[in-house]
Amino acid sequence: MSIFISELIGTALLILLGNGVVANVVLNKTKGNNGGWIVITFGWAIAVFVGVFVAAKNSGAHLNPAVTVAMSFLKKIPLETVPLYFAGQFGGAMLGAFLVWLLYRHHFTSTADAGLKLAVFATGPAIRDTTSNLISEIVGTFVLVFSVLYIAAPSSSLGALDALPVALLVLGIGLSLGGTTGYAINPARDLGPRIMHALLPINGKGSSDWSYSWIPVVGPIIGAILAALAFSAVAGF
Amino acid sequence: MSIFISELIGTALLILLGNGVVANVVLNKTKGNNGGWIVITFGWAIAVFVGVFVAAKNSGAHLNPAVTVAMSFLKKIPLETVPLYFAGQFGGAMLGAFLVWLLYRHHFTSTADAGLKLAVFATGPAIRDTTSNLISEIVGTFVLVFSVLYIAAPSSSLGALDALPVALLVLGIGLSLGGTTGYAINPARDLGPRIMHALLPINGKGSSDWSYSWIPVVGPIIGAILAALAFSAVAGF
Amino acid sequence: MSIFISELIGTALLILLGNGVVANVVLNKTKGNNGGWIVITFGWAIAVFVGVFVAAKNSGAHLNPAVTVAMSFLKKIPLETVPLYFAGQFGGAMLGAFLVWLLYRHHFTSTADAGLKLAVFATGPAIRDTTSNLISEIVGTFVLVFSVLYIAAPSSSLGALDALPVALLVLGIGLSLGGTTGYAINPARDLGPRIMHALLPINGKGSSDWSYSWIPVVGPIIGAILAALAFSAVAGF
Amino acid sequence: MSIFISELIGTALLILLGNGVVANVVLNKTKGNNGGWIVITFGWAIAVFVGVFVAAKNSGAHLNPAVTVAMSFLKKIPLETVPLYFAGQFGGAMLGAFLVWLLYRHHFTSTADAGLKLAVFATGPAIRDTTSNLISEIVGTFVLVFSVLYIAAPSSSLGALDALPVALLVLGIGLSLGGTTGYAINPARDLGPRIMHALLPINGKGSSDWSYSWIPVVGPIIGAILAALAFSAVAGF
Repeated sequence: MSIFISELIGTALLILLGNGVVANVVLNKTKGNNGGWIVITFGWAIAVFVGVFVAAKNSGAHLNPAVTVAMSFLKKIPLETVPLYFAGQFGGAMLGAFLVWLLYRHHFTSTADAGLKLAVFATGPAIRDTTSNLISEIVGTFVLVFSVLYIAAPSSSLGALDALPVALLVLGIGLSLGGTTGYAINPARDLGPRIMHALLPINGKGSSDWSYSWIPVVGPIIGAILAALAFSAVAGF
Repeated sequence: MSIFISELIGTALLILLGNGVVANVVLNKTKGNNGGWIVITFGWAIAVFVGVFVAAKNSGAHLNPAVTVAMSFLKKIPLETVPLYFAGQFGGAMLGAFLVWLLYRHHFTSTADAGLKLAVFATGPAIRDTTSNLISEIVGTFVLVFSVLYIAAPSSSLGALDALPVALLVLGIGLSLGGTTGYAINPARDLGPRIMHALLPINGKGSSDWSYSWIPVVGPIIGAILAALAFSAVAGF
Repeated sequence: MSIFISELIGTALLILLGNGVVANVVLNKTKGNNGGWIVITFGWAIAVFVGVFVAAKNSGAHLNPAVTVAMSFLKKIPLETVPLYFAGQFGGAMLGAFLVWLLYRHHFTSTADAGLKLAVFATGPAIRDTTSNLISEIVGTFVLVFSVLYIAAPSSSLGALDALPVALLVLGIGLSLGGTTGYAINPARDLGPRIMHALLPINGKGSSDWSYSWIPVVGPIIGAILAALAFSAVAGF
Repeated sequence: MSIFISELIGTALLILLGNGVVANVVLNKTKGNNGGWIVITFGWAIAVFVGVFVAAKNSGAHLNPAVTVAMSFLKKIPLETVPLYFAGQFGGAMLGAFLVWLLYRHHFTSTADAGLKLAVFATGPAIRDTTSNLISEIVGTFVLVFSVLYIAAPSSSLGALDALPVALLVLGIGLSLGGTTGYAINPARDLGPRIMHALLPINGKGSSDWSYSWIPVVGPIIGAILAALAFSAVAGF
């Protein structure tokens, strides 16, 4: 049970701060409006920092089904805990997205562009192309999970002292690899808030872009499995 | 007595550097003029870093009545020290705000907009709405205090090594949640400088916006108590 | 063998994230387009952080022939391992550059300026002048290698805990000394991707600027040897 | 002798990277041109990080006559070492400034504004007013030295692990207090390069602004002594 709660709270903090920074930068009349890519990537990095710090003790701070898949694939967590991880992650992501909407509600109303409203919740491609977009999410998640396994090693879960390295890693993935698809690199981070976008009574919202929604789910899972295989092959821990 | 002095100095440094970065960004003819949200949020983050570093040894570096309320609520500090904390925090905030005015005096004179002059001292809402603004301050402070309790755990006060995690946390709250009300998340940080704004002979100043002033006081207190309750319920320290 | 693999993977991550951030900032239609020097320098810093973190255990994380030359010059690594280091570094740099092209392929197509396409792969001078450009690369690499020797000391290789200091060092070299030649400070970082620029079928690409290509190779080697000499003379480790 | 060499090298690195970032931001045709206050303040912060890291072992990394004055005032260093510190600091500052000119020589030529050329070397006030400018340098240096004494405590010199906290501190002083006079907060940092500005054959240079030059010398000395007194009175180390 503590795994579920820990992942729920950690992922809620991750998405509250992560989707929150997008809201602050892209919605109208906010204090961080138009703050640029440096604001968005630092915001997501600290979102990871806070989420990992809080969830480290009780669940090893996966906060991401792709990480859970890799850990399970490497038999570093018992298979029966996987549903607890997933439930906490998706539940937390939806809770976090709800809170962002609650805080920035009037700013959604002040913003005309429905695409920007969706961008607060879920990622979308800069240039739509299934193969390229999928590759972006696979490579981005590969870098994430491969490096996280090094950061966690020789242990198999993240502790509070790992929060800063993982945050810096996500900062770098955003700065460098986020330019194409917005670096979902986490199925819960993308799908949970996308569901909330569909459910919430957001003023003047448009499509939730379901045709794209499988890429930030499938890409990260593939990337995570490749990363687990590569880590097993070369790391020597 | 050392609690009072420690909180006084730490909070003075917090506000000198925190209100200072706002002065540098919003007042005319400064070297950091128009530096953007990334400058403001990093400035406040380092303000917290320096304040916590200096005040850690003698008072556990609360620097914020909301933190003191949570610590007291959780019975982690003796009730009789609470007035010492509060006095140091409000006194330090007023001292820090005075120093910012002293340094940037000619830049206040060079700035026409009275709203920007107030912004150096106290927060204000991007879109004025009592319920939403209060929710913003409650949620922002919840994230602050809930995470600070994890950072301090298993101890109940902040040490010098906690200065960096707390600074990063405040960086994230600013980047992600500061877009609506400017993240006061600290009654002393807002009310102390607002009083100084009313008292100081600032050239061409306008209203101190007293009608809003209760929100950055009440919101943080509510958020802190909710965070203390949540931490007790789930953290397991 | 593990030295080769470790340097290959570490340098591939370095270039994937390093060239990646340039792609994100200079190519059209990316999410980080026009993000500025702060995005580029932080992107390269975190590229170093991730590369060093991953390669620390098995090869001491040189990721740069200039570092290997200095370590070999100081007899801190056996001479027979030098070819393994070089092979891993150049191979990794080419692999990383390939991945950046793979991810940002459509963005290369969307960008008209052939100079920007080359800039994703290799450095070029802001003002072309052989002597000045060479001095820039010598001084930049001197600062890198001299400081890396302090960071590694008293050991002679970088560990995972050295990843952050080295990343900050490279951040500073970029911010302060990168304005003239774009801080190659690493022969593999420049020559490997430049070869890939020549080989890959990049839409609308121009010259690979071979006439400049020796400067980011020779300059860093000279800088590294000078740094090794200076370190021996003064450090006292 | 090792104190002199250590301070010479550390301060040369400090000024090479510190003045270097200003050159990159304010001179024409550089890659970091117009990078903004965030680039300048991070550049100086990392300059401090590198300088302190390298000079920590052999001289405790003062790199600043104001720090040496405070340490001497508190009897934490022998009086007879003070001239060695000063000589290394001023010599290093001049060496660093020379290297910046060497690297960015063509960019000085490409820049018309003589005021920007001086700004690469030495600080100047945003609004010229002796009293206010002096107060800015006193308060900025007070925050620096007072906090450095806490960072060094209970020891009386800076170690390599103190490089990051001191760098963050200087980042904060720049972001928040640098808006008025450009935060010299170090007599060697300002006077050494100003002398080089007068001596070097810089294309199209103007006045070295000697009438202002005493403020970034006297202000920091006053601030340092006040900080030493305050630290003695309250810190309890």
